[in-house]
Amino acid sequence: MSKPTPISGFPEWLPPQRMIEQYVLDRIRTTFELYGFAPLETRAVEPLDQLLRKGETSKEVYLLRRLQEEAGGPAGDSGLGLHFDLTVPFARYVLENQGKLQFPFRRYQIQKVWRGERPQEGRYREFLQADIDIVDRDTLPAHHEAELPLVIGDALGGLPIPPVLIQVNNRKVCEGFYRGIGLTDPDAALRAVDRLDRVGPDQVAELLVGTAGATPEQAKACLALAGISAPDASVADEVRALGVEHPLLDEGLAELVAVLETAAAHAPGLCVADLRIARGLDYYTGTVYETQLRGYERFGSVCSGGRYDNLASSGGTSFPGVGISIGVTRLLGLLFGAGELTVSRSVPTCVLVAVPDEAHRPEINRIADQLRRRGVPTEVSPSAAKFGKQIRYAERRGIPYVWFPGADGAADEVKDIRSGDQVQATPDGWTPPAADLRPVVG
Amino acid sequence: MSKPTPISGFPEWLPPQRMIEQYVLDRIRTTFELYGFAPLETRAVEPLDQLLRKGETSKEVYLLRRLQEEAGGPAGDSGLGLHFDLTVPFARYVLENQGKLQFPFRRYQIQKVWRGERPQEGRYREFLQADIDIVDRDTLPAHHEAELPLVIGDALGGLPIPPVLIQVNNRKVCEGFYRGIGLTDPDAALRAVDRLDRVGPDQVAELLVGTAGATPEQAKACLALAGISAPDASVADEVRALGVEHPLLDEGLAELVAVLETAAAHAPGLCVADLRIARGLDYYTGTVYETQLRGYERFGSVCSGGRYDNLASSGGTSFPGVGISIGVTRLLGLLFGAGELTVSRSVPTCVLVAVPDEAHRPEINRIADQLRRRGVPTEVSPSAAKFGKQIRYAERRGIPYVWFPGADGAADEVKDIRSGDQVQATPDGWTPPAADLRPVVG
Repeated sequence: MSKPTPISGFPEWLPPQRMIEQYVLDRIRTTFELYGFAPLETRAVEPLDQLLRKGETSKEVYLLRRLQEEAGGPAGDSGLGLHFDLTVPFARYVLENQGKLQFPFRRYQIQKVWRGERPQEGRYREFLQADIDIVDRDTLPAHHEAELPLVIGDALGGLPIPPVLIQVNNRKVCEGFYRGIGLTDPDAALRAVDRLDRVGPDQVAELLVGTAGATPEQAKACLALAGISAPDASVADEVRALGVEHPLLDEGLAELVAVLETAAAHAPGLCVADLRIARGLDYYTGTVYETQLRGYERFGSVCSGGRYDNLASSGGTSFPGVGISIGVTRLLGLLFGAGELTVSRSVPTCVLVAVPDEAHRPEINRIADQLRRRGVPTEVSPSAAKFGKQIRYAERRGIPYVWFPGADGAADEVKDIRSGDQVQATPDGWTPPAADLRPVVG
Repeated sequence: MSKPTPISGFPEWLPPQRMIEQYVLDRIRTTFELYGFAPLETRAVEPLDQLLRKGETSKEVYLLRRLQEEAGGPAGDSGLGLHFDLTVPFARYVLENQGKLQFPFRRYQIQKVWRGERPQEGRYREFLQADIDIVDRDTLPAHHEAELPLVIGDALGGLPIPPVLIQVNNRKVCEGFYRGIGLTDPDAALRAVDRLDRVGPDQVAELLVGTAGATPEQAKACLALAGISAPDASVADEVRALGVEHPLLDEGLAELVAVLETAAAHAPGLCVADLRIARGLDYYTGTVYETQLRGYERFGSVCSGGRYDNLASSGGTSFPGVGISIGVTRLLGLLFGAGELTVSRSVPTCVLVAVPDEAHRPEINRIADQLRRRGVPTEVSPSAAKFGKQIRYAERRGIPYVWFPGADGAADEVKDIRSGDQVQATPDGWTPPAADLRPVVG
């Protein structure tokens, strides 16, 4: 068999990178649970009609087909596709299980998603997302929109990575403003403004005229709104200085200011209002979030989301929600690519127990057992080679300690192979320094 | 939108079940790491030729196709399928990354796999597996085959589930025996014996005659071997009493006895030799494992694997390995179905902070922050409803404590809503009993 090669867009990490990923995921999960979010996983597949509900994504979906599809046509699994985010499956799950859930329902979900996109830097076909959402029945208070950035700030703030900046906008601000200046298709205007970073203001102005029915003056006003950015309540003054009035604009500005003030009280510098943030997807109806990793702004958002009112409804009941999603693979991919994030060893093992000869392996196993029972990750040497070779086995993996069983009644000894220090020890008494017990991510 | 319905074969848990699953996975992962296995994840997809290498599985594979596959035929992603186990992807990963890995390489891998099977009780189309494997370059000592059952015994033994019994056989015993009685196609004989539980001895005898070229006497000998079961070294005596001689048989019996004796020293009652265990897949070459959950034997194996010598090789280098895989979804599915396994609450939250009125939400948030910083999972009440309603919010979720902020300079109080006890407390001083901090799985 020839050596296999990677598949573009389907990243795989080496074990030390996976150890870092797990460390990051543990931190994220612990933070989500500290805020009372319950864990959830949904199946990887959804019916195609569910996946296509929100539009504009049809080209991204991977469909499934059984290799030996049963004869007889469209039954079988041919209507299933892999989910491309965790929000659409979550909305479906809430509808399906509404009678068994307590509302408001706070859940987190950490899973792979798939998109059949052309791979490019920072874009993957398979990647890991970590989402939190809060949904309620019929109504959802806006204070939840102020809470989610705090959770993300805590989750990512505790990691050895550059600080993040969460950019916030509110769809009501945009729609109220667009309506206030007389535009009748605010969705089209929003989609045009959403392209600002990619195509620049001149082309966005053309799009606003061509697709949203704007006059050149209206287009100019939309661009003026998109140019506003402020870290605090002054954002409302800047918007009002543009002289546009609409009740939805007032509502949106009040919500936007509440998000900024809550963030300032909890984590100064975490959030900024940036009114160019549009989020292309149609389903957002209130606050929207994007997140830059400072120093890596050119890679785009590593954490996005927003408020949605119409994603899930059935039988006259709607389930408004707000959610935010950390792009874990994107975040790690760019940090690994930049040489950031390291781990102190490539295995969980803290102690390698040396084997003087194969006949003694049963007793050696008992030493390892005693260490493990006390929580010390321990391997037994795979061979009874010369001790120098067994020490090199540990060295190559970064295992800090090698345990030498005492022969003929002599005491066991344990060696810190970094310093060379060797001391007498018993497997039911010796404990490594806390800093050596687990691999350290830095 | 109408209420969605489940898709057969794609199980989804409710949040309390997912909390139990995470508890189980944490225990498994912690145990794997205590034994020095490094974490790994592989992509969900493999090239179809990789997936079909080991034969007999073609009907189970889900193929991928992009919804808008680019014109021009067989390029695109049309050659990709979802992995149906974690062993084939692991073998591919080892070949692909052989220059970057340290051998012997011990890894664990906990991921979903997919099979396009017709769903039935205990059989899923999407399910979670937790695998450990040890691979080395060129040779792999047999003592690793004795080590893996101990890891599984420790991982599952610490859970509040019925005890497991690991049934062990060795392909060399079967092949040596079959060759010793003069059969020339031991693989065909093994495949026939593999059907013993499903079709019974008479039909297996017919299969042995019809497909493995056995005489009726040889078929009878094969069935006699398959009937042997023993918890210790006496298994070798029982096999030798059948009067068959072959060097491979001797080698296999020595390995089988070593597995049993290692297990007996570590965990009496964990392993038993059962010579009917064949494992249908072709790639095993030494020890094979299956695992029964006591009291649930009729559901089949919840943890299987074995030694393989020929799964991965390239450029004259082979990578023999041994692995074992816990069927997590199957295990949980049958225990949930039987009403086993419970969790003490349906959310991670330990404390709900009551909100007397919305104007005080910023101060209430600070109380919650202080508790979280000290590791206490805390939610703030979503509404400033009457306290009775806020207490019911906690009750319905099993949250044990409700925190009442003191008004007008009065001290805060915290109430255990199970006992009704209410005491004065400060958010930087109060700590719940350790047993209440996290949900308890029992």
